[in-house]
Amino acid sequence: MQLSISKWYKILAPRPVVLISTVNIRNNPNAAPFSFVMPCSTEPPLVAFASDPDHHTVKNILETKDFVVNIPSRKLLKQLWTCANDFPYGVSEIKKANLTEEKSIKVKSPKIKECFAHLECKLYKHYRAGDHLLIVGKVLRADIDEKYLLKKQYSITKADPLMHISGTEFGVLGKVIKVR
Amino acid sequence: MQLSISKWYKILAPRPVVLISTVNIRNNPNAAPFSFVMPCSTEPPLVAFASDPDHHTVKNILETKDFVVNIPSRKLLKQLWTCANDFPYGVSEIKKANLTEEKSIKVKSPKIKECFAHLECKLYKHYRAGDHLLIVGKVLRADIDEKYLLKKQYSITKADPLMHISGTEFGVLGKVIKVR
Repeated sequence: MQLSISKWYKILAPRPVVLISTVNIRNNPNAAPFSFVMPCSTEPPLVAFASDPDHHTVKNILETKDFVVNIPSRKLLKQLWTCANDFPYGVSEIKKANLTEEKSIKVKSPKIKECFAHLECKLYKHYRAGDHLLIVGKVLRADIDEKYLLKKQYSITKADPLMHISGTEFGVLGKVIKVR
Repeated sequence: MQLSISKWYKILAPRPVVLISTVNIRNNPNAAPFSFVMPCSTEPPLVAFASDPDHHTVKNILETKDFVVNIPSRKLLKQLWTCANDFPYGVSEIKKANLTEEKSIKVKSPKIKECFAHLECKLYKHYRAGDHLLIVGKVLRADIDEKYLLKKQYSITKADPLMHISGTEFGVLGKVIKVR
């Protein structure tokens, strides 16, 4: 059956959802959730995401050339949803959501402390793609909360990352299946 | 704790996994799994994925300018894994995996019948991104198997899509959570 083309992206789901934190030239922080996100190179390490070009996140990245990809657990769903609100420019969604800004090591944009992992990124390239802007960042540093390691390896079941389905629907990982 | 930068993409998971089918100029079909994939525009409808530039999928797309994004259910895990094999150029992974090629409506690349949804795409843009090529396709037609609709809407729990975690580890959707 043919599906309405305007809703096609609902079937490419669930997708990882991340909080992207930035600062503007006056050093005011911003954070917003994105689920049009993917890794796109291993060496150099590059991550891509797509955003409405008028979004404060894009404005800040084009001004200050860096951002942090913060990865939230299931328990941060309410805070993530608060960050999706359209607060006035310059207002910190991080504070509005009662989350904690933490200084990054390699970039000006702050990390969100409560997220279990952080990718500190420098703007690498950006391209217009239809009604979105495709932003590619180079990962300068990746950090993970030690609580989510098992035998020194990242444990996805411990971290329990959030995924976006559509609208107000989110999902979490169910069964893990191994091939062979 | 700092994470090895070469493994950073393992924490941006689980990711939707799709089978991308293509043809070469001699009309020989090919299919391979990809999980570096995301929607990147709603109007026009654009989908992006990243691939090793030497991959047969890329060679075919650059030759014939189209591809199909096929979305597999959990039950297709073994067949998807077969498609990940490095068969010689021109050999159809679709046949090797005992899957069925079906004629597409808008593009030359075939659909894989057993997948629950299909996005017929025309090459829109491609960009070099580190060690990968970023391919952006325009979705010309989206189809879904009616079995996976509930009250005429796509039901993700009925479709039970596969996600990739890392290496041989895959996942399926667990609990669906609604905000508010």
